[in-house]
Amino acid sequence: MRKIIVGVMGPGKNATANDLQNAYTLGQLIAKQGWILLTGGRNLGVMDTVSKGAKSAEGLTIGILPSDNQDSISSWVDIAIFTDMGNARNNINVLTSDVVIACGMGAGTASEIALALKGSKPVILLTNDEESKVFFKKLSPENVYIVESVDQAIATAKTILY
Amino acid sequence: MRKIIVGVMGPGKNATANDLQNAYTLGQLIAKQGWILLTGGRNLGVMDTVSKGAKSAEGLTIGILPSDNQDSISSWVDIAIFTDMGNARNNINVLTSDVVIACGMGAGTASEIALALKGSKPVILLTNDEESKVFFKKLSPENVYIVESVDQAIATAKTILY
Amino acid sequence: MRKIIVGVMGPGKNATANDLQNAYTLGQLIAKQGWILLTGGRNLGVMDTVSKGAKSAEGLTIGILPSDNQDSISSWVDIAIFTDMGNARNNINVLTSDVVIACGMGAGTASEIALALKGSKPVILLTNDEESKVFFKKLSPENVYIVESVDQAIATAKTILY
Amino acid sequence: MRKIIVGVMGPGKNATANDLQNAYTLGQLIAKQGWILLTGGRNLGVMDTVSKGAKSAEGLTIGILPSDNQDSISSWVDIAIFTDMGNARNNINVLTSDVVIACGMGAGTASEIALALKGSKPVILLTNDEESKVFFKKLSPENVYIVESVDQAIATAKTILY
Repeated sequence: MRKIIVGVMGPGKNATANDLQNAYTLGQLIAKQGWILLTGGRNLGVMDTVSKGAKSAEGLTIGILPSDNQDSISSWVDIAIFTDMGNARNNINVLTSDVVIACGMGAGTASEIALALKGSKPVILLTNDEESKVFFKKLSPENVYIVESVDQAIATAKTILY
Repeated sequence: MRKIIVGVMGPGKNATANDLQNAYTLGQLIAKQGWILLTGGRNLGVMDTVSKGAKSAEGLTIGILPSDNQDSISSWVDIAIFTDMGNARNNINVLTSDVVIACGMGAGTASEIALALKGSKPVILLTNDEESKVFFKKLSPENVYIVESVDQAIATAKTILY
Repeated sequence: MRKIIVGVMGPGKNATANDLQNAYTLGQLIAKQGWILLTGGRNLGVMDTVSKGAKSAEGLTIGILPSDNQDSISSWVDIAIFTDMGNARNNINVLTSDVVIACGMGAGTASEIALALKGSKPVILLTNDEESKVFFKKLSPENVYIVESVDQAIATAKTILY
Repeated sequence: MRKIIVGVMGPGKNATANDLQNAYTLGQLIAKQGWILLTGGRNLGVMDTVSKGAKSAEGLTIGILPSDNQDSISSWVDIAIFTDMGNARNNINVLTSDVVIACGMGAGTASEIALALKGSKPVILLTNDEESKVFFKKLSPENVYIVESVDQAIATAKTILY
């Protein structure tokens, strides 16, 4: 009965043009599946763009904010959860997601992947950062899925979820 | 553009029959206003009953769970946020709510009222516990609203929100 | 083998002169017992003064900070734990204390008392706020201890701890 | 005036014999420097062994526990901070440490390294896991220090701290 929630994690700052393009399409496809999109909720980078993509396809978007107020919230977030707990909220992001998709790479994203794996959550990696793929796949061969495209990310998520 | 979220806090165990009756009607009326209902998400007491009421009126319900899994989740929660942070999640409950309604009284509920007041959030008290009303009204005269009925709670929430 | 930790909670702002006088003496007596003092760690009000008192008697002081940095830390804190989780750190304050002493009253203090009672921790109330004593004693008759002086607070803590 | 805190992070389960040997010596040397040791506080793996090492040299040890009680606490922890927030406490571990030393590798350890780097904390890596060194060094060249021995870890920590 509960709705499926797919988390998309990625850099706020330092997202590449490719990451942002992937993020927008991911958002659209997640919405089209009828899944709820979860992000870190801020108004920059992958968080912002994937939420915008989901809204363009009339999806529902949740943002788990590090702050206690609306100052840095993405305009594309429907439901804002204010945690006021900084990066510790990254653990909530992954525990709440039925599947985690990492779109791009950075320190925050790496922490979310690692916390997800610590909690035995499946993680789909969509990034050009080769070193991260090698590292995380070795860290948790059974829960890390490496994909090369947005379509493959969605197909992999379906395999995990159904 | 973001949706309005109204949090209803109340005892899990030790809710009175009157608290539960109020909770069910509160859930219905919150849903009818088009507001999202937020609770602590567990399958007991006020949390469970207010969510059931909201679903009976086709509302959307969010549960902020203290745990990391679905073991004790209310069946009437649409969107489950898993925090794995026990009662510290009470702070998220109140920071995320545009208005907090306390329906009944207990230690957990008291902590949510106090955290809300600490964060300068408006709190509406609907309870037969007279000592709590005296205490909290003195603690924060400007942010505590004492009401005698569910209808008055909703009317007060409207005054605060609009 | 683990050291005994006594938490002293009280207003940061709005502490009365009497609260601060009690706080200083409490800090001294806690240190003289060989107990570690735990506070919210900031450089104001009861937190600051009780830590100063403990250091005057060569005690060890822990501060559980709401922030992620040293900007507002009390000079009398030996060990600073940076949580970056705002008032949600109040739950850590009480879970970590073997006994909680509330010295004065305010919204933050009330949240700590309520969270302590939710976690079945003993709480000693030392305050002139009569309404809070009536409310909390009714909320949890078995875990709330009302005292009239610093000496009585320490004597009560001993009874609970040993 | 505040004491220096050095955090040592490493696997609870799946620590190698080499990790544990390093952990014990690290604990001893940290204590001999007069630094406080901070760990995740549980009674297994690197957390437990490094604390034992520190106590063998009469150091002071802090454990930041994921739980709300003493069930799984290391016997070598002097000061136990009970967070009841699961792996979200990993962020407190790193924010509270002046320097973070990773001794070994695993999902929890990787999350702590990533959270430390997100918070611009210096991280010293002491592990045979080559992929992690490549990944994290690329992620944050300025804050990641790769060392080959316990002695080198301590020397590097000194350079960072003084």
